[in-house]
Amino acid sequence: MLILLTNDDGIRAPGLVAMYRELTSLGEVHVVAPETVQSATGHGITLSTPLLTQRVTVEDTFTGISVDGRPADCVKLAVARILPRRPDLVISGINSGANVGINVIYSGTVAAAIEAAFLGLPSIALSLYLRNEIPLDYARTASFAMKVVRQIVAAGLRGGQVVSVNIPPLRKEQSPTGVKIVRQCTNAWIDQYEERTDPRGRPYYWNRTVFHLGATDQDTDVAALRDGYITITPLQFDLTYYPMLREWKDRVWMVE
Amino acid sequence: MLILLTNDDGIRAPGLVAMYRELTSLGEVHVVAPETVQSATGHGITLSTPLLTQRVTVEDTFTGISVDGRPADCVKLAVARILPRRPDLVISGINSGANVGINVIYSGTVAAAIEAAFLGLPSIALSLYLRNEIPLDYARTASFAMKVVRQIVAAGLRGGQVVSVNIPPLRKEQSPTGVKIVRQCTNAWIDQYEERTDPRGRPYYWNRTVFHLGATDQDTDVAALRDGYITITPLQFDLTYYPMLREWKDRVWMVE
Repeated sequence: MLILLTNDDGIRAPGLVAMYRELTSLGEVHVVAPETVQSATGHGITLSTPLLTQRVTVEDTFTGISVDGRPADCVKLAVARILPRRPDLVISGINSGANVGINVIYSGTVAAAIEAAFLGLPSIALSLYLRNEIPLDYARTASFAMKVVRQIVAAGLRGGQVVSVNIPPLRKEQSPTGVKIVRQCTNAWIDQYEERTDPRGRPYYWNRTVFHLGATDQDTDVAALRDGYITITPLQFDLTYYPMLREWKDRVWMVE
Repeated sequence: MLILLTNDDGIRAPGLVAMYRELTSLGEVHVVAPETVQSATGHGITLSTPLLTQRVTVEDTFTGISVDGRPADCVKLAVARILPRRPDLVISGINSGANVGINVIYSGTVAAAIEAAFLGLPSIALSLYLRNEIPLDYARTASFAMKVVRQIVAAGLRGGQVVSVNIPPLRKEQSPTGVKIVRQCTNAWIDQYEERTDPRGRPYYWNRTVFHLGATDQDTDVAALRDGYITITPLQFDLTYYPMLREWKDRVWMVE
């Protein structure tokens, strides 16, 4: 099994390294990932500037290719030029930070996985929910992630299908409450900005929103992750809103 | 009517200026747009760096606020801090370049409109399909866009709803074939990269894909725009793929 591993935190991120170590039990893992941190870049791509690449050895664990581009660029370029053949599976992560609710749209981790699905490949985005009071343990997170990845593969994830997996932060003695298949919470997230003045008297604004998993319906990714579950959300890349399409289909529109 | 006008080509882009001129007939237009070109940034947001803002007067036509951030930042910041009250309508564009098919996902223009819908506002993304052999005429494009915007508002576009409008390039004597409500084409778009070597012998890759509207089903945005129609596609920001959610709902998942 040929596996492409990428992320949006950069090729040296501990979440990627930990996941690499787990994935080698499943197949031949090729890493093509951004040179630098690309968090919250969303589904951007690089069109007008070239993509520099470099062979990088990380923690004596793997030698991969770093790309000075965005997560979706890494997937495009890996599939078009770098990998010896089309991969059987694409893994993006483990991201440091949850990708649930509205963050699904902003996430570079998810964008890379969606890009792979565009290209007809089966793909999985992996993210870890961070909480300050719980120490990070990527090795343990990756071992839980791997159990879920194996089951998703066994369930028959097909080319063009993409799922996003979020893992709760766990203290040493804790296990996840369970695994839940849940929808994306679409509640609005209202950002707060602090206004300041720069040394030249010009105003600037700083986003001071602290992400937390708030109140929401019980069947969503936000609620399940908050309650300690590993969440699995199947995603799509058809943004058409069909109910409105049907409603507006027969309206008469004028252009003159 | 208070209208927020933004884009991803930057506050001085001719498509935005032309649309400003049209929109003043509909209400009070406030421009909050990126300082620099942000094409293909997707739905990125700025979290860790501050957003500098500046009052900018463009072509003696309007004075707006430029933000050194991404399209979605502009909408967030405008709604949270800059506008005197919540806008009644958000317009993003006119983008120079079509946002149909897979480009819907990459588009900063669409991301700004989707961000507005997140925040519970009605919003419309506007894009012009560019073809080299047809001279650009933003004033004429904006006048067609305005006709469509008026009809969308009259149709009762609600808070939280977002539509993407694409306009074909037109020669002086031409009119659009008509207006079509169509779904997003989700066909894969295979990018091609040219490999080169930098002066230090390192490889780099350049995306050489030329966007064109290819063969696809007749009911899609790509087909209709190619055939000279103005296209309207209602969009959503729930990326959950429900058929798979239902299929996987009752599977048993193990974490130990």
